[in-house]
Amino acid sequence: MADQMQSWADGQAKTQILEFVRSVTEPGASFVPTRDRIAAFDNDGTLWCEKPMYPQADFLLRRWRELAQAHPGMAREQPWKAVVEDDREWLARILDHVPELTKGVTEAYQGITTQVFEKAVRAFFDTARHPVLGVPYTRLGYRPMRELIDLLTDREFEVYICSAGGRDFLRVVSAEMYGIPRQRVIGSGTTLEYRHGQVYRTGGVEQPIDEGPGKPIHLWSRTGRRPLLAGGNADGDAAMLRTARFGLLIRHDDPEREFAYDAGAEKALTKAKERGWTVVSMQDDFGTVF
Amino acid sequence: MADQMQSWADGQAKTQILEFVRSVTEPGASFVPTRDRIAAFDNDGTLWCEKPMYPQADFLLRRWRELAQAHPGMAREQPWKAVVEDDREWLARILDHVPELTKGVTEAYQGITTQVFEKAVRAFFDTARHPVLGVPYTRLGYRPMRELIDLLTDREFEVYICSAGGRDFLRVVSAEMYGIPRQRVIGSGTTLEYRHGQVYRTGGVEQPIDEGPGKPIHLWSRTGRRPLLAGGNADGDAAMLRTARFGLLIRHDDPEREFAYDAGAEKALTKAKERGWTVVSMQDDFGTVF
Repeated sequence: MADQMQSWADGQAKTQILEFVRSVTEPGASFVPTRDRIAAFDNDGTLWCEKPMYPQADFLLRRWRELAQAHPGMAREQPWKAVVEDDREWLARILDHVPELTKGVTEAYQGITTQVFEKAVRAFFDTARHPVLGVPYTRLGYRPMRELIDLLTDREFEVYICSAGGRDFLRVVSAEMYGIPRQRVIGSGTTLEYRHGQVYRTGGVEQPIDEGPGKPIHLWSRTGRRPLLAGGNADGDAAMLRTARFGLLIRHDDPEREFAYDAGAEKALTKAKERGWTVVSMQDDFGTVF
Repeated sequence: MADQMQSWADGQAKTQILEFVRSVTEPGASFVPTRDRIAAFDNDGTLWCEKPMYPQADFLLRRWRELAQAHPGMAREQPWKAVVEDDREWLARILDHVPELTKGVTEAYQGITTQVFEKAVRAFFDTARHPVLGVPYTRLGYRPMRELIDLLTDREFEVYICSAGGRDFLRVVSAEMYGIPRQRVIGSGTTLEYRHGQVYRTGGVEQPIDEGPGKPIHLWSRTGRRPLLAGGNADGDAAMLRTARFGLLIRHDDPEREFAYDAGAEKALTKAKERGWTVVSMQDDFGTVF
């Protein structure tokens, strides 16, 4: 089993994960039948790089730029004004916050079918490059986490992504990046409308969004179970980790190979100690990052 | 493949189903890769018997009776008054309509955790008997439909239930009745709240409910795909069937072995002709019913 986690450095995190997976999948007191083997991972900062901005924020910025160019009158109003004037402070205020980001994407892409939206997302992933690392976002999934997903899948877990970000955004690349089919992507969503055989995106945001207390709610709605294993990296993941038997918290402490920041994860790091979650140091526990 | 459908009588419906399944799962021009093999079935009247009332309506009536007994003051007000006075006309007006029924269940079971609700549902299925047929509801799934689900599963379809009824109600018995795990039950839901590690049912109904135009919306939200095959029995299933490659419409025309009624399916029966859906006559096409 350990040979399936080659990108992990030897250490406590790797040992704890392997021990847990073994204990619930091999005969013994902790054995769990396959039907209850549900795993759930946050996405931004847990499965892929979220700095200096969420990939979905880049996706939205490009759309705003496109709209401002097509309708010059809009450039006098926010948010298009900020894009035209490159007002990074204003943009950071919006794009760093999941509810505002979700609302932004919803409004910028309303009135189209889910199929047309998927094409826009596909075009983004085919052309956009990470602003610092210079590679496509699809190459910025964490390799150790992909190995863990594959290991869990081999051990007959059903692995879900439970992301605060847009469900229909991430679905487009979840299979190629993580081997997770689109029906196992849980995330925030736009409200939808059915007309004449088609499903259209409308202007609202489905409540609750899939963040904080919304995560256990979405997980229940979608799976009807508590996760056996859950992984996250931020305060918004703490509720989901609390409902899992095994919690895993990624810590971004590798300024050389990725980014180093604890902001937004302070409470989760405190809770990790209280609740015995396994903290994964990207610097120490990830042999390879990407 | 035909030997997996032994409870079906030979005829056009059986032939069309087998031909379709073969065409999309065996090499050839119509072959569909496994990732796109999504099937979705309505539940009430499609997979189990819905007359003389939805099993969930019986579940609700019992709860109302329980509440009226525990709080005699309530018996002066509706809906408890109707239960105490056995006012069938009043009750039928409520319980025949999915939105009212959904709202009733939500209100009657608010403020408890999903786990406690599950226990109440389990107790219902363990004790309740169908008022006419006299057997537990869990024995009133249609055997030919179960065979079809098994056949599709063998052919690597991922089979979902897409029910206007309560998702968390049906989930409790979906695996034992249909071999469909709870995470593949889509249905109407109550609003939920997360507190201290638990998910609670609150007093609202999640919108849209999983009926009519809500079905393709729920299916998209949950799977990110259109169904390859969809089955229903009523007008509320027509939108879902329209989005599927192969549509199947059960017709209740067997007063001897089940019930005979077209009410509530008139539009769907007309659309079946227009759109080439396969109409399944319970009398002619079901060799065995239960």
